[in-house]
Amino acid sequence: MSTTTDARAAAPLAARTSGTVRIVGSGLLGSSIGHALSALGVDVALADASPAQLRLAVDYGAGRLAAADDAPSLIVVAVPPDVTADVIERELADYPDAVVTDVASVKLEPLHALRARGVDLSRYIGSHPLAGRERGGAISARADIFVGRPWVVCRDGETSSADLAVVEGLALDLGATPIEMSPEDHDRSVALVSHVPQIVASVLAARFVGAADESLRLAGQGVRDTTRIAASAPELWVQILGANAAPVVEVLDALAGDLADVAEALRLPDAPGSRRAVADTIRRGNEGVERLPGKHGQNRRFEQVVVMVDDTPGQLGRLFGELGELDVNVEDLRLEHSPGAQFGLAEISVVPDAVRRAVDGLEARGWKIASTTND
Amino acid sequence: MSTTTDARAAAPLAARTSGTVRIVGSGLLGSSIGHALSALGVDVALADASPAQLRLAVDYGAGRLAAADDAPSLIVVAVPPDVTADVIERELADYPDAVVTDVASVKLEPLHALRARGVDLSRYIGSHPLAGRERGGAISARADIFVGRPWVVCRDGETSSADLAVVEGLALDLGATPIEMSPEDHDRSVALVSHVPQIVASVLAARFVGAADESLRLAGQGVRDTTRIAASAPELWVQILGANAAPVVEVLDALAGDLADVAEALRLPDAPGSRRAVADTIRRGNEGVERLPGKHGQNRRFEQVVVMVDDTPGQLGRLFGELGELDVNVEDLRLEHSPGAQFGLAEISVVPDAVRRAVDGLEARGWKIASTTND
Repeated sequence: MSTTTDARAAAPLAARTSGTVRIVGSGLLGSSIGHALSALGVDVALADASPAQLRLAVDYGAGRLAAADDAPSLIVVAVPPDVTADVIERELADYPDAVVTDVASVKLEPLHALRARGVDLSRYIGSHPLAGRERGGAISARADIFVGRPWVVCRDGETSSADLAVVEGLALDLGATPIEMSPEDHDRSVALVSHVPQIVASVLAARFVGAADESLRLAGQGVRDTTRIAASAPELWVQILGANAAPVVEVLDALAGDLADVAEALRLPDAPGSRRAVADTIRRGNEGVERLPGKHGQNRRFEQVVVMVDDTPGQLGRLFGELGELDVNVEDLRLEHSPGAQFGLAEISVVPDAVRRAVDGLEARGWKIASTTND
Repeated sequence: MSTTTDARAAAPLAARTSGTVRIVGSGLLGSSIGHALSALGVDVALADASPAQLRLAVDYGAGRLAAADDAPSLIVVAVPPDVTADVIERELADYPDAVVTDVASVKLEPLHALRARGVDLSRYIGSHPLAGRERGGAISARADIFVGRPWVVCRDGETSSADLAVVEGLALDLGATPIEMSPEDHDRSVALVSHVPQIVASVLAARFVGAADESLRLAGQGVRDTTRIAASAPELWVQILGANAAPVVEVLDALAGDLADVAEALRLPDAPGSRRAVADTIRRGNEGVERLPGKHGQNRRFEQVVVMVDDTPGQLGRLFGELGELDVNVEDLRLEHSPGAQFGLAEISVVPDAVRRAVDGLEARGWKIASTTND
């Protein structure tokens, strides 16, 4: 298993997390944390309201069944948003020596609920790993889903440095980057970059339900990308959106205003500034999308080389083998099929310095380069 | 150039398009049509209002310069939407024996303009290849961008079967699938699957302009996909949206209503049916996105196998080489980097029958399978 061994080299030499970690909730996030900590040699005690789900998580190697005499130093609450506050309260009471964190994707609502009940929150630090997969559940859990992802940690005036270090240590052990943020800033941020995009994709895709087959045949890659996340599961999203309603509504209202402005400009094309209003919207969109961090961080740029590839087994192998011989590392890849054709297009992202080497080397080996971005 | 030769096997044995084809406008679409027809041995005469652009297209092999004594059988108008009607009118007058088509992405506005001027449209058939690239211009032109894509052909009562066959023959020669549609249906369809998604992506991305860096650090792949097309160029889109204003406004208004309904349900979480309204929106989004044709057509489904891959040259080569040995064809591929980690995840789409073979074979060769969709 050479690949595994090599990958593991990215893990820290010595885990910061020690003692027993109790994980309550063995869904995708809880189980993935369990897998990652277990691989680091940490004792992971799993609990779940569902015995079947718990058994599955244990069978898949996320940890052991929690025992009555466990003395965890850290408790991770990874349950659905609507029961997060209840479970945090119970865990704080049951384990008076443990630091308790949660991984819910909304941070203010559980905090308000706990404060309203007068719970002592000095040992609680809310957190949120920005990681996930399209499929949930213990079966989909993967130790690596946190690697390179942000992990928001919400400290407040009551948080001790030692407790903060425990939660940030967990994030670091799992390969994530801890980001300290207030619960308010967190909730506003995820409303903008996650919750509203989900709603937008869903309402747009919902418009296709009543459309003619013929109309949908005209759909291309653009609209497929725009609506991809509309495939997300309703149950979890109803909870998330409900728990973060105020910040979500704020962005939705602003967005509805922007859409109304575009509609107005299109309705009255001869009104002063109408064309300009439409152009400005597209231009601001250009600017906004440029600000999103890329797969390799905000400022690193790759060039694309598009290669024609036969749609037969082994062709991609030959292509990537030869790129390896040319010492060209593939940073990203997008494979485009031409339905009905016997070939596809492989769009390969490489560092700018490697474009010439890749193009010349591949052409010399008989590949057809369809295009490159820095010609 | 074995790859090229194999790919060419997908081209028709005998081109339907014959004689001289005059292409007016040597941007991305005009030049790409020129490349494809030239490769089929058709005589392509190029014209463009910009001598520099024209020279570039000729240099890149899209065709020859048009001559005064050309007698084209088919004229393709591939100019920006705002001058499309003017150019169609002029070409019909200048070449009284030619069939004239255009490739503008809006079909009703030029038709209305031409009818209002009393132009005899018996030799004009509007069309629209649903093909494009993120970059425009003759430099980005590619002969293969039409392969497998729909090409809408708008016949009307005046259209002769012989003329229709010429335009549909062009589409077929370029590897596209002709779809007959009324101009009204076409414009409504592209409003839904192309123009409104563009606006939605742009207004959403525009919201990031004023956001804090810290907030945007929380962005993941979902919002990146949702806003990817916000990177499109403003100039062309202002023209397209302006030319298709009524159908676009209709969808925008409906969408704004849908967004307002979600906002209302979130604002009044305890009102009867509020949670259900949010769930229904997500659920209808699930249903709508399922209706979009996939890369291989609407009904074919692939399974995904996710493999951990070292982020070093040659690793993907080894992976794809071994998949070839296992006789597994890679239908699609998504490469996910974990920034800061020494490895990435290759999500490989394969036909369901090949999942077991791929997983067992790769594991036997030491690869770590992170997950599969049909476990």
